[in-house]
Amino acid sequence: MIEYRSIRVALLGAGSVGSQVARLLLEHADELAARIGAKLELVGIAVRDVDAKRDADLPRELFTTDAETLILGADVVVELMGGLEPARTLVLQAIASGADVVTGNKALLAAHGPELFAAAEQVGAQLSYEAAVGGAIPIIRPLRESLAGDRVDRILGIVNGTTNFILDRMDSTGASLEDALATATELGYAEADPTADIGGYDAAQKATILASLAFHTSVPVEAVHREGITGVTAEQIASAQRAGYVVKLLAICERLADPDTGDEGVSVRVYPALVPRTHPLAAVRGANNAVFVEAAAAGPLMFYGAGAGGVQTASAVLGDLVAIARRHVVGGPGTSESTHADVAVLPIGSITTRYAITLEVEDEPGVLAKIAKLFSEHGVSVEQLQQTVDEGSGRATLVIGTHEAREQALADTVAALAAHPVVASVASVLRVEGS
Amino acid sequence: MIEYRSIRVALLGAGSVGSQVARLLLEHADELAARIGAKLELVGIAVRDVDAKRDADLPRELFTTDAETLILGADVVVELMGGLEPARTLVLQAIASGADVVTGNKALLAAHGPELFAAAEQVGAQLSYEAAVGGAIPIIRPLRESLAGDRVDRILGIVNGTTNFILDRMDSTGASLEDALATATELGYAEADPTADIGGYDAAQKATILASLAFHTSVPVEAVHREGITGVTAEQIASAQRAGYVVKLLAICERLADPDTGDEGVSVRVYPALVPRTHPLAAVRGANNAVFVEAAAAGPLMFYGAGAGGVQTASAVLGDLVAIARRHVVGGPGTSESTHADVAVLPIGSITTRYAITLEVEDEPGVLAKIAKLFSEHGVSVEQLQQTVDEGSGRATLVIGTHEAREQALADTVAALAAHPVVASVASVLRVEGS
Repeated sequence: MIEYRSIRVALLGAGSVGSQVARLLLEHADELAARIGAKLELVGIAVRDVDAKRDADLPRELFTTDAETLILGADVVVELMGGLEPARTLVLQAIASGADVVTGNKALLAAHGPELFAAAEQVGAQLSYEAAVGGAIPIIRPLRESLAGDRVDRILGIVNGTTNFILDRMDSTGASLEDALATATELGYAEADPTADIGGYDAAQKATILASLAFHTSVPVEAVHREGITGVTAEQIASAQRAGYVVKLLAICERLADPDTGDEGVSVRVYPALVPRTHPLAAVRGANNAVFVEAAAAGPLMFYGAGAGGVQTASAVLGDLVAIARRHVVGGPGTSESTHADVAVLPIGSITTRYAITLEVEDEPGVLAKIAKLFSEHGVSVEQLQQTVDEGSGRATLVIGTHEAREQALADTVAALAAHPVVASVASVLRVEGS
Repeated sequence: MIEYRSIRVALLGAGSVGSQVARLLLEHADELAARIGAKLELVGIAVRDVDAKRDADLPRELFTTDAETLILGADVVVELMGGLEPARTLVLQAIASGADVVTGNKALLAAHGPELFAAAEQVGAQLSYEAAVGGAIPIIRPLRESLAGDRVDRILGIVNGTTNFILDRMDSTGASLEDALATATELGYAEADPTADIGGYDAAQKATILASLAFHTSVPVEAVHREGITGVTAEQIASAQRAGYVVKLLAICERLADPDTGDEGVSVRVYPALVPRTHPLAAVRGANNAVFVEAAAAGPLMFYGAGAGGVQTASAVLGDLVAIARRHVVGGPGTSESTHADVAVLPIGSITTRYAITLEVEDEPGVLAKIAKLFSEHGVSVEQLQQTVDEGSGRATLVIGTHEAREQALADTVAALAAHPVVASVASVLRVEGS
């Protein structure tokens, strides 16, 4: 029997992910020790309520409410409490005390990433966060290391399982947003207050993390253009289906030149978009996640898997833990985050995209010409146009697909359409991505 | 202007991948230096013929035919020559001289992996090989690090672009194997001698590498059960299509108990198999690759991208190079390969799978009963059976899908069917995977 040295692991939080991390550390202690060449010793679990019900059966003596004391004796601190405070303070204390940190806290990284990475770099500590984006899917490490010699041009990510479940449900059953959300809540895919998911806030936090990493640039979450799925209708989904598209909530991180100055910049944005059914992202069903990466040399890559779930996300946490523990065995400081590129984060108006617009218009002579003129006045070129006349109402439905154009020009076009006397209503506006 | 220290890189081989690696190193020198904190200095490129035509325009003074001398002054040696010798000797010399090594040579790793990893571990050198499997797709690093705290149960990989192109072409156009292969050759997806690809040898080498890494066990390439696609017919593809399947050449690495002893073992095998069209692997078209990984905690994951191509594969080589260079900057020895688990590699007869069998039988009373009896005598349970009678020939076609059974029992059943007097011929036998 080999006597391994111990690496002391302190766990903060025992929710759905934390309790699975603790269980796996205890159950697979021998196998992990053999892989690492050292023992991962779980020295304690800090929680608010020692007596709360947990997803896994864990020894009661491990629990404590005193996180600060627990941290002091640890080689690695695993932060899975969520939220900004006290998570931020505890992570900074852990780094200051000489520990490495593993976190799955996307909100914390999106809000305080630069501060935490700087603190870690100063003392040579490792701050790992594979679990913060895409649950079980290895995406942080591939971006951070595998593609470190390449140039990432674009990321299209389905990074929120709740909204993907809802949109997939609407697509496959024709359900309304309300009904699909109700099903998601019933099945445990949506929380009682689903705002963070359906409002796109969760996806925006993850977009921040992905963009910062991919572009070696600090991207504050406030700079992310964010639209949720609350406005998506069953009609939009059905119409997308007929046209060979599927509606997905995408987190998009894109390198592009500032259209005014020509300087290098990046755009980071979250919105529901039309994705061609032939695109690999269209096949991502249910609550799954996938991150589609376009790199200059590697070409298109996709990383797919479970985007959430306690035990699934625990796999990502353990991967980080093992990597850190191996480094403790062999020595050497951690990998730091580089924001050397420091390029500008451009506003949404700077991007180039395509719009699919559905209008209700008066069915009278000359309408098409007026609408076409309005597009050309805004410098937007129409790729296709389909008109359906409803004899009863005396109105017609126009479905218009544009060529690529500046977002600002497209937005201005839609505003002008809405104000035009022949337009009864703008029924739907969706961007087209991934084609 | 920051003055960076140099990390001296020697390149062996300037084929489609090597010449792109050299080009990217030269073109992106500044950006790479900023990311690493040190300069990657390409000190020379060893080739057989200095005057040969290259895919990239590279300074002539970098070329040499003297690989042994070039290695001596290098911090990192990048081996992209292919083949076993002199690659093996040069890699061992590089390691002995104190250099780290990056290789994309799957044949070398499949044949001499354990020797090379042992040599690297002895001196604390890093031996990286992301480019050896799946071209640009980050799969080695995720298996080696991201899933290091999890337990990989199964890998289903489409790891050969040539055969995937051929099978996809047969599926989408109804072409014969010969015609699809001719197209692949014409388009540059198949080599003049396509044996390594269509015979499954290339996939078997990659399966060896994936299995060794996933199961922490040395898997010799001779232990891989290998069937190529040479027997796949247009009829099989069409019949698979009708039944909702697609035929893919899969590299399968699976953890399973030895059915005789109950001891833990692994099975590593390559064969064309039926994959349900709803499976994420079914959507992998053309010459693309994808590796589908099932891990105990993480659940199913998929890694998708370009499986070949000079510049694409160069991205993987550069990722390894940057990781090694960062380690040179911060210090610490390399990651070594662990084969601590050392579980048995089981023969193909040990696996459990499902068969889809097509038989031509005499159309006479009692035939079905005889066939059914034969299956039950071998302990194989039939899941579905479809009979089509050709009035003209007096023969019937039986398509039989089995439930899961031991490979040995299935193989014995097929042998008995072939010898049975009512069976005119066994037209097709394919395994079903991924359901």
